[in-house]
Amino acid sequence: MNPNQMAVQEAARFMQEHDRFLVLSHVSPDGDATGSALGVVLMLEQLGKEYVVVNEGETPIKFNFLPRFDRLYNLRKQPLNETFGAVIAVDCADESRMGDVRSLFASGAALLNIDHHPTNDHFGTVNLVRPDAAATAEILFDVAEAAGVSFNEELALCIYTGLLTDTGGFRYSNTSPRVMEIAARLLGYGVKPGDVAERCLEEITFAHVKVLRRALQTLQLSHQNLIASITVSAADFAEVGAEREDAGGLVNYCRNIEGVEVGVSFVEAEPGVVKVSMRARDRVDVAVIAKQLGGGGHAKAAGCTIKGPLSEVQQKVWTVLDDAVGVKFDE
Amino acid sequence: MNPNQMAVQEAARFMQEHDRFLVLSHVSPDGDATGSALGVVLMLEQLGKEYVVVNEGETPIKFNFLPRFDRLYNLRKQPLNETFGAVIAVDCADESRMGDVRSLFASGAALLNIDHHPTNDHFGTVNLVRPDAAATAEILFDVAEAAGVSFNEELALCIYTGLLTDTGGFRYSNTSPRVMEIAARLLGYGVKPGDVAERCLEEITFAHVKVLRRALQTLQLSHQNLIASITVSAADFAEVGAEREDAGGLVNYCRNIEGVEVGVSFVEAEPGVVKVSMRARDRVDVAVIAKQLGGGGHAKAAGCTIKGPLSEVQQKVWTVLDDAVGVKFDE
Repeated sequence: MNPNQMAVQEAARFMQEHDRFLVLSHVSPDGDATGSALGVVLMLEQLGKEYVVVNEGETPIKFNFLPRFDRLYNLRKQPLNETFGAVIAVDCADESRMGDVRSLFASGAALLNIDHHPTNDHFGTVNLVRPDAAATAEILFDVAEAAGVSFNEELALCIYTGLLTDTGGFRYSNTSPRVMEIAARLLGYGVKPGDVAERCLEEITFAHVKVLRRALQTLQLSHQNLIASITVSAADFAEVGAEREDAGGLVNYCRNIEGVEVGVSFVEAEPGVVKVSMRARDRVDVAVIAKQLGGGGHAKAAGCTIKGPLSEVQQKVWTVLDDAVGVKFDE
Repeated sequence: MNPNQMAVQEAARFMQEHDRFLVLSHVSPDGDATGSALGVVLMLEQLGKEYVVVNEGETPIKFNFLPRFDRLYNLRKQPLNETFGAVIAVDCADESRMGDVRSLFASGAALLNIDHHPTNDHFGTVNLVRPDAAATAEILFDVAEAAGVSFNEELALCIYTGLLTDTGGFRYSNTSPRVMEIAARLLGYGVKPGDVAERCLEEITFAHVKVLRRALQTLQLSHQNLIASITVSAADFAEVGAEREDAGGLVNYCRNIEGVEVGVSFVEAEPGVVKVSMRARDRVDVAVIAKQLGGGGHAKAAGCTIKGPLSEVQQKVWTVLDDAVGVKFDE
């Protein structure tokens, strides 16, 4: 048995050994956090265990198609007068990611840490950390098998949701053969891939549409059509009544235009603070550009936050981009 | 050996028995047609065969990342003075789908028909037709195995492209466990899922963005926010300089808004001819509505074409939709 398999066995044993659990994921939970936490909950139910599943705050309503969503405890709304001797944390790189849920740990609590972040600091008493996994849900699949839990549509749905969301709909480079093999197994239990994608990846807010509508008015091609950019000002946010989250994904409209090498979005959710997001196709490394501007990221997806009036920030970014693509701003 | 396996063997034998082939797919080729045709080409190369791969017209440039794309013959641009005794047709439900490429068949030509359309009329001398397959590329995977061809990144890329595009990025209901298993195998040969999705599913034209920009100005919620609709008039098309194809997918912006049950787009690409597209979430069957309006489709995706002035067409559609959602048009 290799170390990975041993850690999986140990995690399964952890679930079998204790009787009552606190189950948690991270603040601002995404699809993998929520799917994995509720997946653990379903496993515990099958094992005849008791649990409370808690988040510091609210879980996005779009995940309400997941089984046991109504069991998710919002600590901000309902204080809990209990401390737990057995805790299962999923998708948390470190304890700070748990927020105030840490206050529910009994002193000396046994703590199972299941996660796939490379930065995980092994905060658990039992640690099942696999940075090679695309999602925490991928690891959970193995734990479920090791724990002798039987798969059904509900458990499959939780795990599938984690896989789908953390791979960007099976598109990010972490989409390994193993991810697809597990997805194949899960579909076999009756998961409807279109329904999950619709809820997790396709749903948008009306506020997003309103921001998009304004942003597209500003879309411009420059640098001999190699760069497409889009801008949302603080005034736009105020007039439309949108939040920062409603402006997500705008930069993709720029990068996806045929012939464009770099997409850039300038989003001023707070007056005088501009988030610059960049997406590249093949010929430009935007991580290098973001670094020059005080930010960071990957070759194809990077960004930075610059303070100052919108037009000055744009000027600063164009100067760096002029050099990167070897063509001057032309519009 | 079951009948399916026998047909697969027969198809493999067809490739082995002949020496020079005409390879073709259908007019207006999509990702499955192009990926499958070029997949056949790579198989024939490995088997030491000669071939000409032909389309009636042009293949969309976005597929130029596929191997041997430059070998695709455009019959409209370059007439061919050859007839072929061995033909392999992929993804064609009947001979009419081939367009003028039929003129290249020698009389009494041997014809291998590989397809997954339920309406396929078995036009071949050898027919490998499997309506249960999500894509023709899925069938081709089996033929490659039966023909003893060795998989590599190029062949895997062709087949993966067919699977990805015909399942809408692994989201349509035809995304079976088998599709995901094959995708897992193909990723193992080095296919980059993000690159393929970027080229096949995410790329948009600048004209599309311009149409979208206008269309979003018309977006309205009605029927107590249960219906979202969007309109592109003939004047919009003319002023923006867009073609009908540039208005694809607009209806999804409507359906994807949270809380919306039915998305509707009115697209008047030609003056006085309005294409009405409808997408539903859970509570409404748009196939029934489309049928009442003289069109058709599925419960979640349907449409019709109505002649008349835009405002009259909209009035007609609202009347039917009022009944379907049990709420009157309110805006």
